[in-house]
Amino acid sequence: MRRIIIDTDTAGDDTIAILTALHHFKVEGVTITGGNVDFDQEVENALYTIQVFNPDYHVPVFKGYEGPILGTQEGHVTVEDVHGKDGMGDSFFEKAKQRPEDKHAIDFIIETVKANPGEIELLAIAPLTNIAMAMKKDPTIVKDIPHIYIMGGTNNSLGNITAAAEYNFYVDPEAAKIVLHSGIPITMVGWDMCTRYSVMADEDHQEIEKLGTERSKFFMDINRVVLKFNREVHKINGTTHPDTLLVAIAANEELMTKSTMYYVDVETKGEITRGYNMVDINNRSGKNPNVRVCEAVDRDVFKADLLAVLRGK
Amino acid sequence: MRRIIIDTDTAGDDTIAILTALHHFKVEGVTITGGNVDFDQEVENALYTIQVFNPDYHVPVFKGYEGPILGTQEGHVTVEDVHGKDGMGDSFFEKAKQRPEDKHAIDFIIETVKANPGEIELLAIAPLTNIAMAMKKDPTIVKDIPHIYIMGGTNNSLGNITAAAEYNFYVDPEAAKIVLHSGIPITMVGWDMCTRYSVMADEDHQEIEKLGTERSKFFMDINRVVLKFNREVHKINGTTHPDTLLVAIAANEELMTKSTMYYVDVETKGEITRGYNMVDINNRSGKNPNVRVCEAVDRDVFKADLLAVLRGK
Amino acid sequence: MRRIIIDTDTAGDDTIAILTALHHFKVEGVTITGGNVDFDQEVENALYTIQVFNPDYHVPVFKGYEGPILGTQEGHVTVEDVHGKDGMGDSFFEKAKQRPEDKHAIDFIIETVKANPGEIELLAIAPLTNIAMAMKKDPTIVKDIPHIYIMGGTNNSLGNITAAAEYNFYVDPEAAKIVLHSGIPITMVGWDMCTRYSVMADEDHQEIEKLGTERSKFFMDINRVVLKFNREVHKINGTTHPDTLLVAIAANEELMTKSTMYYVDVETKGEITRGYNMVDINNRSGKNPNVRVCEAVDRDVFKADLLAVLRGK
Amino acid sequence: MRRIIIDTDTAGDDTIAILTALHHFKVEGVTITGGNVDFDQEVENALYTIQVFNPDYHVPVFKGYEGPILGTQEGHVTVEDVHGKDGMGDSFFEKAKQRPEDKHAIDFIIETVKANPGEIELLAIAPLTNIAMAMKKDPTIVKDIPHIYIMGGTNNSLGNITAAAEYNFYVDPEAAKIVLHSGIPITMVGWDMCTRYSVMADEDHQEIEKLGTERSKFFMDINRVVLKFNREVHKINGTTHPDTLLVAIAANEELMTKSTMYYVDVETKGEITRGYNMVDINNRSGKNPNVRVCEAVDRDVFKADLLAVLRGK
Repeated sequence: MRRIIIDTDTAGDDTIAILTALHHFKVEGVTITGGNVDFDQEVENALYTIQVFNPDYHVPVFKGYEGPILGTQEGHVTVEDVHGKDGMGDSFFEKAKQRPEDKHAIDFIIETVKANPGEIELLAIAPLTNIAMAMKKDPTIVKDIPHIYIMGGTNNSLGNITAAAEYNFYVDPEAAKIVLHSGIPITMVGWDMCTRYSVMADEDHQEIEKLGTERSKFFMDINRVVLKFNREVHKINGTTHPDTLLVAIAANEELMTKSTMYYVDVETKGEITRGYNMVDINNRSGKNPNVRVCEAVDRDVFKADLLAVLRGK
Repeated sequence: MRRIIIDTDTAGDDTIAILTALHHFKVEGVTITGGNVDFDQEVENALYTIQVFNPDYHVPVFKGYEGPILGTQEGHVTVEDVHGKDGMGDSFFEKAKQRPEDKHAIDFIIETVKANPGEIELLAIAPLTNIAMAMKKDPTIVKDIPHIYIMGGTNNSLGNITAAAEYNFYVDPEAAKIVLHSGIPITMVGWDMCTRYSVMADEDHQEIEKLGTERSKFFMDINRVVLKFNREVHKINGTTHPDTLLVAIAANEELMTKSTMYYVDVETKGEITRGYNMVDINNRSGKNPNVRVCEAVDRDVFKADLLAVLRGK
Repeated sequence: MRRIIIDTDTAGDDTIAILTALHHFKVEGVTITGGNVDFDQEVENALYTIQVFNPDYHVPVFKGYEGPILGTQEGHVTVEDVHGKDGMGDSFFEKAKQRPEDKHAIDFIIETVKANPGEIELLAIAPLTNIAMAMKKDPTIVKDIPHIYIMGGTNNSLGNITAAAEYNFYVDPEAAKIVLHSGIPITMVGWDMCTRYSVMADEDHQEIEKLGTERSKFFMDINRVVLKFNREVHKINGTTHPDTLLVAIAANEELMTKSTMYYVDVETKGEITRGYNMVDINNRSGKNPNVRVCEAVDRDVFKADLLAVLRGK
Repeated sequence: MRRIIIDTDTAGDDTIAILTALHHFKVEGVTITGGNVDFDQEVENALYTIQVFNPDYHVPVFKGYEGPILGTQEGHVTVEDVHGKDGMGDSFFEKAKQRPEDKHAIDFIIETVKANPGEIELLAIAPLTNIAMAMKKDPTIVKDIPHIYIMGGTNNSLGNITAAAEYNFYVDPEAAKIVLHSGIPITMVGWDMCTRYSVMADEDHQEIEKLGTERSKFFMDINRVVLKFNREVHKINGTTHPDTLLVAIAANEELMTKSTMYYVDVETKGEITRGYNMVDINNRSGKNPNVRVCEAVDRDVFKADLLAVLRGK
């Protein structure tokens, strides 16, 4: 089994992505960064999700940066309107028994990578603060990380938090820039892939509900709020699964039916473009490609994988 | 007949757009701004094009700003690789007999608009320097211009001069910003409309060549270089007609099978996004729509219009 | 007599500067730009000042740009707290008989310079919008302007409108940048020279009042508000005369007891430094000097000149 | 004895500042950040300096960030022209016996502060990367640090690395911004204080040489290159001691004969002002003062302190 660390601002689809990661990988640890909702709530959400997957599991959860590299925690953008106040569709689950570790997330990343050079892949489904800060604290980890899978950005398409930008890159564009230019092999699955291939509509939800597992019930619970939000804001008639798609692709690259190496960069200084990411498809910049960008997905295989995770075999 | 002023950096498709404008409108004047190729060459190209349309016509041509509002003329980006050294497919036509006027382009715009309030529409197929500077010199023209049709920007799609930006907005983003926020009713036809609906491929070219008119021969001549450029850089197998499409739409709005009012803004300060334009489709900014954005075109009607122009009735 | 055009946002010390210019130069025209107070009030202030100098004089006054090159008129920063609501110490003088000309300020500048190449010097005591826009409309005037004297900026010292920036450069930094990099010989007299050498304290005011001329009375009237402002905001115990100092230096360069050629540039993009101007004293940038920066003034000669102007010989 | 951590990019005057800190304080540790010269050389310089102070001392030295928060190590600006290739006046001393610790500088800062709340003051004589990153990793240390003394910035005066900016703020303006806005009480001693009060000229050097101690010999050695640099670039006829002045002031605040609380901020986005710091003397911004800015120094007391340190009592 491949070994991974998953970095998450656990709310909404992050939870299903964690279930998917636990299903496919040996998860060395879950690291939390500020993002979707209140930081401590995110930590609880991750712990609860692990318990949903298997009440007997202990996968360590590490607290990382509560806010972006620059700016203040106060200035940090959370999106309770998307995922509910608790980030779990306003389910207000009770606390899991497992508690978070004392070690800081970036020290966990650094130590795990250094102890297992070339072995630990990173799955990033949150603002990239923890991963960037780990690289900054110990630049030697760069050569020891074989691959980072990133849910973030968009490929010359509409953003979600602003028209120009996708949320994970928008919240900490400086972190995104550091990671994208690190030299580590990167696969990026953007917001456009999510809206095109990951949407689960009413009929899909009925199929999921019929599974009748604890996980399928969990899926229905946590997706309650986002369904309404998607209809009103994004004009999408269903739930969106950017993070789960990322993890499913990492587990099984054949889900990607098209992907290309492009030069990708992030804007940190614009007035209306903070967090915008360039995907230089026609290489007008003349720069060397640094990211494999996912351009098409086999939606049927993805759905089958999601159902398998929720069915629990 | 509707009365218009057409503002152009005459090279390549600008010429066919001028033919189209002369075909459909009473053209009060042609104003030249720096852009595609050497400024004086652009002036000659406009004069020659009028002569191609009808050797007996005199439509006055006015010289405007050679470079963008900010930056130096030296820093101005021209694109001889797209349209040939002369901007005319390396045809090196002889000089037209008509000469440009002495009056500055912005004084012509201001005087014509003020003398005919509510009557003069503007067709903009170049960087927006002249139009912005006219508004700045006499802000009262704003209420007297009923509509501006703009070829520029792109709608959440790949740019052409950079991945982030379309050429006309890129060359003078400050001018684009001034015009977009002027309050004048605006229709924008972006680069994405051009690549999706205006491409003329080999079979189209054969039809055009068969017309056997002077104009059709002119079309074939001036498109020689861009055909190669499009194949190599944009992976487009044919010639592109952003400016002609804009004029055809202005003449016959039914060509637009879909258009929506959106908030549109331009980035002037980014590091990698200079000239990027936001089209805020889901209104994440909460700002009032200021631009009608063309989202779909009836390609058959457009092609029929182009052939009619080149046939000369 | 040397021939000049003076560009002014007439309020407060601009008026004494105009008196000084009329005293020393053949003033071809006065051009008005947006700045200190309401634009139309500035025009009236300039006309009234000419009448104060000599009721029989007709020096044409031309209206130019009401606001900066970029940004909207609405966004324009005026400073009624400094000079009073009318910019004249709340004197609310009656309208002068002379009316402004119809021609736009930049056309007057362009035509006068082109008709008298090498003859017309510019005195700039306002945001540099008019002068920059004149250069942009006709770049050939650059070689025909022998010198521009600029009141603006500061030399590695505290600004006045912000800690970083002096008002004239702050209001339209893009214009300042265009002018400073034009290649025209420039003398800059900054806000630091004003605070160090131009302050007139109580005893000076008493001397001026004793002159008993209409001009000295005018001086006392228009300086009423600024005296209070200087005490409260700048901790300066007296009236400040940046514009008059500039004109006095232009008329008699021996007032400058020290000046050096430096590389000077203006920030247009910073978050807290908009309008800041670099004076690269130790040439850390390695760029060629473009501005002669005034570094010391003979205050006694300046005061004597001021008294001569107010005495009227 | 007050307990401090000193953060330094050890080269040139940093060494004398370390001697001064060892003389006056209980130094808990020395933390190294990238700056003046090659990072590993800086570590050696700090170790060697401790040995010069007392060969029997063991003061732990911790390696921190080699480059700024943003940007790459490659892009980091070092200044070998100021302090010599080794940052020690080209003295190429042999390696000290003491070796650096394994723990990362920011973990040392965090642990020491958390273990001794309210006890540990910070002396910062380098780019503020380590201190900012410590605060970001554990924001709770902010309330436990009683004071930070910062050598950095300049007070409305000429910068040193550019005309706009002082070196320590210029290298990592984002770090400076984080620290200045942290809420911790701060005393700032800028480059202007250094040039006005810390310069040691030929006669001072002779006095120092006459001391005949190992420390005075060390002083003469390490200052060899900077003397030449100051004459050529800054037109200063002597050696400059910004870091030593900072430490001396921290040890004895009476050296500061004038200081005022002002609002201080740092520019991170400008084109020519990166690292510029505003000191808002007249409070034009209306923001709350956050920094005590040193405005005058008793130079005689400072010199006496320097001699006492070099004499070794």
